[in-house]
Amino acid sequence: MTPSQAKHRPVAVERTLEIFSDSWSFAVLQEVFFGVRRFGDFQSNLAISRSVLTRRLKHLVAQKILERRRYSTRPARYEYRLTERGRDMYPIFVAFRQWGERWLDDAESHAGLRLIHRPCEHGLDMKFCCRHCGKEIHASDVHYDLASSA
Amino acid sequence: MTPSQAKHRPVAVERTLEIFSDSWSFAVLQEVFFGVRRFGDFQSNLAISRSVLTRRLKHLVAQKILERRRYSTRPARYEYRLTERGRDMYPIFVAFRQWGERWLDDAESHAGLRLIHRPCEHGLDMKFCCRHCGKEIHASDVHYDLASSA
Repeated sequence: MTPSQAKHRPVAVERTLEIFSDSWSFAVLQEVFFGVRRFGDFQSNLAISRSVLTRRLKHLVAQKILERRRYSTRPARYEYRLTERGRDMYPIFVAFRQWGERWLDDAESHAGLRLIHRPCEHGLDMKFCCRHCGKEIHASDVHYDLASSA
Repeated sequence: MTPSQAKHRPVAVERTLEIFSDSWSFAVLQEVFFGVRRFGDFQSNLAISRSVLTRRLKHLVAQKILERRRYSTRPARYEYRLTERGRDMYPIFVAFRQWGERWLDDAESHAGLRLIHRPCEHGLDMKFCCRHCGKEIHASDVHYDLASSA
């Protein structure tokens, strides 16, 4: 495979998938999206071991998805907050969840958790619209251009 | 960890991630979303080896994302089409791409490919709206209910 032939290879996707290298990273991120910030709360909500949680938090900080901030000096205590880069992952997270809930009919897959959209109090049902024309996006309405890369 | 404590573990997400076990599966799916159906076209568009492509197509068929259909009898030839379950993965795919394009500033990550929304001919810029109230969805507007699972 020569480099010029490889232009379709989805490097962006590959690198994004690396960030969610395992489901625990995703689980931690889910908790953050719901407002959890502190080590102890992650641990009790997820029933995750200290060492696994520590590794996942480090990974997410290294990937600049979370940042670690001190919120108390004596004793020194830290919390974890989403960066803008991390906040921007929310659609990926919801798209995954929504697909899983629809298509994995294993009852366990729902894990007893229901997302609610606060402004209307309905169960979260996301649709994907074009920011320019406002229409709902379907695969058949999208084509691609090969930009002028060599 | 007892089962009842594990209710937050994102089984749906984990199982969905398994389907995209590697970036080539994603690359194949991307081609399908753009209308590619035949083995030879996947192969030349992706510059992928026969054996890697064969494995990925089998994986996607086994996961009921694609289905294999005969389109010619003599010789017997097959093409690959999205199932409804597969078509429904489109938002995941676009959400990943969009995040990667925005945040992975490696020029290579764009891979020379630009998605265009046909109805308005703008570069694809997706927003995520509530199907019920139509508002754009932000993480801070979503909370969760623990359904009455044990």
